Amino acid sequence: MKTLLIHGTVLTVNDQNDVILDGAIGFEDDRIIYVGPTPEEFKEYDRIIDAGQRTIMPGLINTHGHTAMSLLRGYADDLPLQDWLEKKMWPLEAQFTAEHVKWGTLLSIVEMLKTGTTTFVDMYDHMDTVAQMVELSGMRASLCRGVIGLCPPDVQKSKLDEASEFAQKWNGAANGRIKTMMSPHGAYTCPPDYIEKIVARAEELDLPIHIHMSETQFEVEQNIKDYGSRPVEHLEKLGVFNQPTLVAHAVHLTDEELDILARNDVKVSHNPISNLKLASGIAPVPKMLEKGICVSIGTDSSASNNNLDLFEEMKMVALLHKGVHLDPVAVPAIEALRIATRNGAKALLMDQEIGSLEVGKQADFIVVDTKQVYYQPSHDPISHVVYAGSGRDVRDVFVAGTQLVKNGQCLTLDEEYIKEQANRMFQTFNQE
Amino acid sequence: MKTLLIHGTVLTVNDQNDVILDGAIGFEDDRIIYVGPTPEEFKEYDRIIDAGQRTIMPGLINTHGHTAMSLLRGYADDLPLQDWLEKKMWPLEAQFTAEHVKWGTLLSIVEMLKTGTTTFVDMYDHMDTVAQMVELSGMRASLCRGVIGLCPPDVQKSKLDEASEFAQKWNGAANGRIKTMMSPHGAYTCPPDYIEKIVARAEELDLPIHIHMSETQFEVEQNIKDYGSRPVEHLEKLGVFNQPTLVAHAVHLTDEELDILARNDVKVSHNPISNLKLASGIAPVPKMLEKGICVSIGTDSSASNNNLDLFEEMKMVALLHKGVHLDPVAVPAIEALRIATRNGAKALLMDQEIGSLEVGKQADFIVVDTKQVYYQPSHDPISHVVYAGSGRDVRDVFVAGTQLVKNGQCLTLDEEYIKEQANRMFQTFNQE
Repeated sequence: MKTLLIHGTVLTVNDQNDVILDGAIGFEDDRIIYVGPTPEEFKEYDRIIDAGQRTIMPGLINTHGHTAMSLLRGYADDLPLQDWLEKKMWPLEAQFTAEHVKWGTLLSIVEMLKTGTTTFVDMYDHMDTVAQMVELSGMRASLCRGVIGLCPPDVQKSKLDEASEFAQKWNGAANGRIKTMMSPHGAYTCPPDYIEKIVARAEELDLPIHIHMSETQFEVEQNIKDYGSRPVEHLEKLGVFNQPTLVAHAVHLTDEELDILARNDVKVSHNPISNLKLASGIAPVPKMLEKGICVSIGTDSSASNNNLDLFEEMKMVALLHKGVHLDPVAVPAIEALRIATRNGAKALLMDQEIGSLEVGKQADFIVVDTKQVYYQPSHDPISHVVYAGSGRDVRDVFVAGTQLVKNGQCLTLDEEYIKEQANRMFQTFNQE
Repeated sequence: MKTLLIHGTVLTVNDQNDVILDGAIGFEDDRIIYVGPTPEEFKEYDRIIDAGQRTIMPGLINTHGHTAMSLLRGYADDLPLQDWLEKKMWPLEAQFTAEHVKWGTLLSIVEMLKTGTTTFVDMYDHMDTVAQMVELSGMRASLCRGVIGLCPPDVQKSKLDEASEFAQKWNGAANGRIKTMMSPHGAYTCPPDYIEKIVARAEELDLPIHIHMSETQFEVEQNIKDYGSRPVEHLEKLGVFNQPTLVAHAVHLTDEELDILARNDVKVSHNPISNLKLASGIAPVPKMLEKGICVSIGTDSSASNNNLDLFEEMKMVALLHKGVHLDPVAVPAIEALRIATRNGAKALLMDQEIGSLEVGKQADFIVVDTKQVYYQPSHDPISHVVYAGSGRDVRDVFVAGTQLVKNGQCLTLDEEYIKEQANRMFQTFNQE
């Protein structure tokens, strides 16, 4: 089956950042077969869709999150971090069953799809359920069982086995839409020898690693106290970076640590909104980019954001570092767009498959309704998408050539029912 | 004519920040006559509107902007400030005619209305045209002819006369929906004696003053060089603060300057997104709030934002200061909501009339479609509106009891035609 979208403004995010006015994108099954001007004739195609001069761009890639936690959206804001975690998040998360994870994940998937995210990372528990929901939804994801090692050895072992069984079972599943990673939760929640075991398992299974790192100043200080070194050096010593690694947050880093990350090609998931909201700080993104570190963006969970709209994250990464460093040319619009698409693909080792609109890649793309008032006058499509846009303006979403959102409506999921169930699940929590 | 909106979640933003679940708001002509639970019966009303459990809240108040500049949205991003101003903004602004101002203003009004702003400040030129458009649209505004005094005395005089004629003619017009201010553009664009003349005129006409102040470090340093004092002390000496004053930006301030502002009850329009984008810096908002300074929010123009969605500004003010000061309790959600509503009303000396939903006030309110996925689970309506919301979710807008937006469609303005004309006007610019 060959489909052609015509009459769109195509942001390719290819190496030249080509923008094609009155452009078209053709795909056969799940692969892109044409990107260029709207052709004169198109009789080889089975289906023609008119984009009506709206913007066609790669689906956005969310490289860090805990999707099921959408059930806790707005549950406890504006609290000191330890109170938020210890008194609010952890007690409720301890009550999460597979059913909570199911409905929380579905709620997040609906939200992500409707705001133009086509690929996401999830680090959580009950991951079989998450993977099933990803399969069902038609989305693309890189999934990992986040492992906390503050427990007896036998529990550590069973968690690691569970994580690696999950990773093996689902890697490449759903026609390749699901990939998996191994995930020690963080240096402050996993003893060193446990991290080494997880890394060994990742090597054995040839899987990348996803880990929280240097999110707060407190975490860094604790690491020095406990292990005599800052987190980056600590993780390097433990061999983590011998595997392809994606670190989330990376807020508090010295220049030396940045060099270690660059040298090891460690990828960063920058979570600007969550880092602001939890008062963790502001990651040194301009320096990372200068050193050639691959910076992608993540929302973290909607409990600390409080939504999953990557357009907000994209605008924030373009704004925040200008203001903080008093540098109006820091992270220009095109860089922010690449961070949200191409760099996300690189961070997930999927750059050959997604992240830009190019022939041979997967047909993961979105149509943004840039005919709306927010995008007028209509002269600079990249600026408008980054600085004036919103995920709320996403109209159509395709993943692997299958349309998942049409005119703002989810096609594969029953949004109303999911919202009802998410509310019902929230009611089950004991909030004492 | 009496109207009752029923079955909404009402965020009153009254002194107690009351939230009314299954609430209602009744109004007769332009005034609120009831705020409370949805009544058992409502036969005294001529018209009943079911809010369908969506959120009813005060219209947002944008206390600083240059609405016509929406024509320059995205025209020149990511440039050093002086290049942006001198090579890009000023040459095109010099080409603005009344017709440019007309369509740029209408474009902005459509955008503001659709994203839930009911009152805005405009400091610009061709203000008669702006006022006519405000009257036509049904919106509420506080308008001023921004006066730049870097010109010969006769031109200074004619500008001041024009500004005060405009202010007199339109103050209280459009059934009181239009108020006016006097506006020396800034200490760096108006010589001291000219500022004194403008202040004298404001005193004579009993009008408040609106002025840019301490937006950039460069401006502060220049002020010290030119006049021997920082901007706040300088403006105080010139008698500006003897009139009620609203200053825009207020980014670079010492503690002493904050004290002067507090002592004189000077109101601040905080423009966080514009300040980040232009790399001006980050205003000391937590300190301002501590000192009891009235902080409201503004978008500045869409040339430096690049949209006019105050929900984005509201979220930014709640996020930014937490991250910058590493303080997770800085500017909690309710404070951000008050900044965007109640404080805006105070900043414009309209607190008796707007800013909260209370009996006797003007019926300026919006209905936000909080049944959408971004607001689930639905337990904390204030958090959700601030941290998860978007102006794109605004469904209905009422100003002075008249519905201006219904189900996302502008009722008083022809959006499609305005977008066409705004694009046409952009084409008229010589961009050499």
